[in-house]
Amino acid sequence: MAKRVYNFNAGPATLPVPVLERAKDEMLDWENTGMSVMEVSHRSKEYDAMHHEAMSLVKELMGWPDGYKVLWLQGGASTQFLMVPQNLSVPGKPMEYVNTGAWSKKAIKEAKLFGEVKVVASSEDKNFSYIPKDVSFSEDAAFAHITGNNTIFGTEWHYDPKVPSDVPLVVDMSSNLMDKVIDVKRIALLYAGVQKNLGPAGVTLAVIREDLLPKAPEKAPTMLKYSTHAAEDSLFNTPPCWAIYMCKLVLEYMKEKGGVPYFERINREKAKLLYDAIENSGGFYKGHADPDSRSLMNVTFKLPTEDLEKQIVDEAKKTGMVGLKGHRSVGGMRASIYNAMSMDGVKHLVEFLKDFQAKNQ
Amino acid sequence: MAKRVYNFNAGPATLPVPVLERAKDEMLDWENTGMSVMEVSHRSKEYDAMHHEAMSLVKELMGWPDGYKVLWLQGGASTQFLMVPQNLSVPGKPMEYVNTGAWSKKAIKEAKLFGEVKVVASSEDKNFSYIPKDVSFSEDAAFAHITGNNTIFGTEWHYDPKVPSDVPLVVDMSSNLMDKVIDVKRIALLYAGVQKNLGPAGVTLAVIREDLLPKAPEKAPTMLKYSTHAAEDSLFNTPPCWAIYMCKLVLEYMKEKGGVPYFERINREKAKLLYDAIENSGGFYKGHADPDSRSLMNVTFKLPTEDLEKQIVDEAKKTGMVGLKGHRSVGGMRASIYNAMSMDGVKHLVEFLKDFQAKNQ
Repeated sequence: MAKRVYNFNAGPATLPVPVLERAKDEMLDWENTGMSVMEVSHRSKEYDAMHHEAMSLVKELMGWPDGYKVLWLQGGASTQFLMVPQNLSVPGKPMEYVNTGAWSKKAIKEAKLFGEVKVVASSEDKNFSYIPKDVSFSEDAAFAHITGNNTIFGTEWHYDPKVPSDVPLVVDMSSNLMDKVIDVKRIALLYAGVQKNLGPAGVTLAVIREDLLPKAPEKAPTMLKYSTHAAEDSLFNTPPCWAIYMCKLVLEYMKEKGGVPYFERINREKAKLLYDAIENSGGFYKGHADPDSRSLMNVTFKLPTEDLEKQIVDEAKKTGMVGLKGHRSVGGMRASIYNAMSMDGVKHLVEFLKDFQAKNQ
Repeated sequence: MAKRVYNFNAGPATLPVPVLERAKDEMLDWENTGMSVMEVSHRSKEYDAMHHEAMSLVKELMGWPDGYKVLWLQGGASTQFLMVPQNLSVPGKPMEYVNTGAWSKKAIKEAKLFGEVKVVASSEDKNFSYIPKDVSFSEDAAFAHITGNNTIFGTEWHYDPKVPSDVPLVVDMSSNLMDKVIDVKRIALLYAGVQKNLGPAGVTLAVIREDLLPKAPEKAPTMLKYSTHAAEDSLFNTPPCWAIYMCKLVLEYMKEKGGVPYFERINREKAKLLYDAIENSGGFYKGHADPDSRSLMNVTFKLPTEDLEKQIVDEAKKTGMVGLKGHRSVGGMRASIYNAMSMDGVKHLVEFLKDFQAKNQ
């Protein structure tokens, strides 16, 4: 039995143990091929079936209707920051972004290389501790862009901004992909580095409405056009087979457990447990995010002093809980409690927080 | 004991069994972290050490001198086809390419989006069955580009083209990376999808001379500049951690075996065995590549009829040898005998070829 820790890393992040066990079992002989999934040809019927099954599971679990293409891409959300404007910018129309943190800012920076950018709302005034309210986008926007969840600051969108019906809504869901049931029909393009909620680092999921595919300028490089990958079902070139395989195992595991509704229920319970513990600490622990903007995935909070913040992270590690140090932009602690984090892990953390407070207040 | 086949796939390709065994063993608890290597933070000291060790091993095994940066990128060689001209094109100077097959052509196509391209030599007249002789590049070229090995056609460069000293030589080594000892100092930029000789699909190795780093235009997207990745040791964003880890295991395995000189010796023996068998078949098997251009990695050959070609691939599969069907551009058979293909595998194939000829001639 392998020694395991409670892994609160922000991403790459914890994966379900049954998925790791299966990947381990299949390492030298995957589906009776006599090869690892890393060694089979991406043009083989075995690989092809797995690759497409992973796409179908994304459609099924999220409820994407017909008219959308699921893509497996590379380069992380950071590459999507440039692919989005490369494909969807329209001369003379502003690209509209909401600035809710470090990742929004990086997306905005890349978009500026491709044309005019309008930041329609920002929460930078309060160190990104909230999601701006009543956000709406213009009729003449080339597209509207939001960051669904802000890993660093621990905030998440819990309402739908107003997007005119002709304006494509683009959402970076890297850190809240499938954390709750959402109305996907309002989204024109979703992208997510999968290394938080769906698999290991090395593949980027994108889901794009098919009418957007022909929009890329003809002179855009082949690999940077969504249409290239859509036309070949993400087999234009060799895909990151292992990372897709791991996503497929996670998707199967999620389906077996009850799909996104199951994980939403557990995620809400886990988050409530932890946020309640913070609120009920009499101010010893202090949450960074405004209550109505709190992330279900990344719980950010501070302690009375930096010394205590250092001490608690060290002590947590000694009791088998890792990845709890907050990002330097916020300080304090951050507990990332993605889909694969168990209720047990969160209970363990809550007990530890109470214990630490009792000893150190 | 897992059932294994002899895997002659062109890529993704066979990996060393001891490497797979180790990846299997470490799946749930990597280096006493209590996590898989897929679950640790890319900012952790454990990951950082592994990531840098893999880079050091590339430098050590290939003999790169100081003044070069090793990069772990994403998007395969196909993305390098655009990154090379994006970073190294110079207004008013032609980008010079040699066209030795399908991958050269794709590289040329992308370069044309960035400026003037001159094809200084081509072997298209004879279905890419040879490497053009006495190739030289112009003094005024922005850069010189060759494809080191042509997976589809089974040809490989066995001499150094004439490159003026001020012109950077760019080499796509996707399918002959570390297959033999080379003089790396003549190369300014090497790139390779690793899924043939070094690891699984999902990471691209690049090695770039540092003086080339500042050449990208300021307005190039962040993720498409080599300088972005060089400045952060390929940790600007989340790297494809698993694929890099697998490369590190393969590099360690290679070092233990005796490094590139060991693999060159074995590769030459394997290739000789197979090419000799083809030559000594009295014309039943007919090699595609000219003898002086033969690849050490991909052995392409035809049979008297297409029916026999279909039959032999089917029969090979039944005896536990997979991936032998030739690419449609050449037809016939292709045996990819990368570093991880054992001498036993090649001997097995040679015996089978003799046997098949005896029964079917």
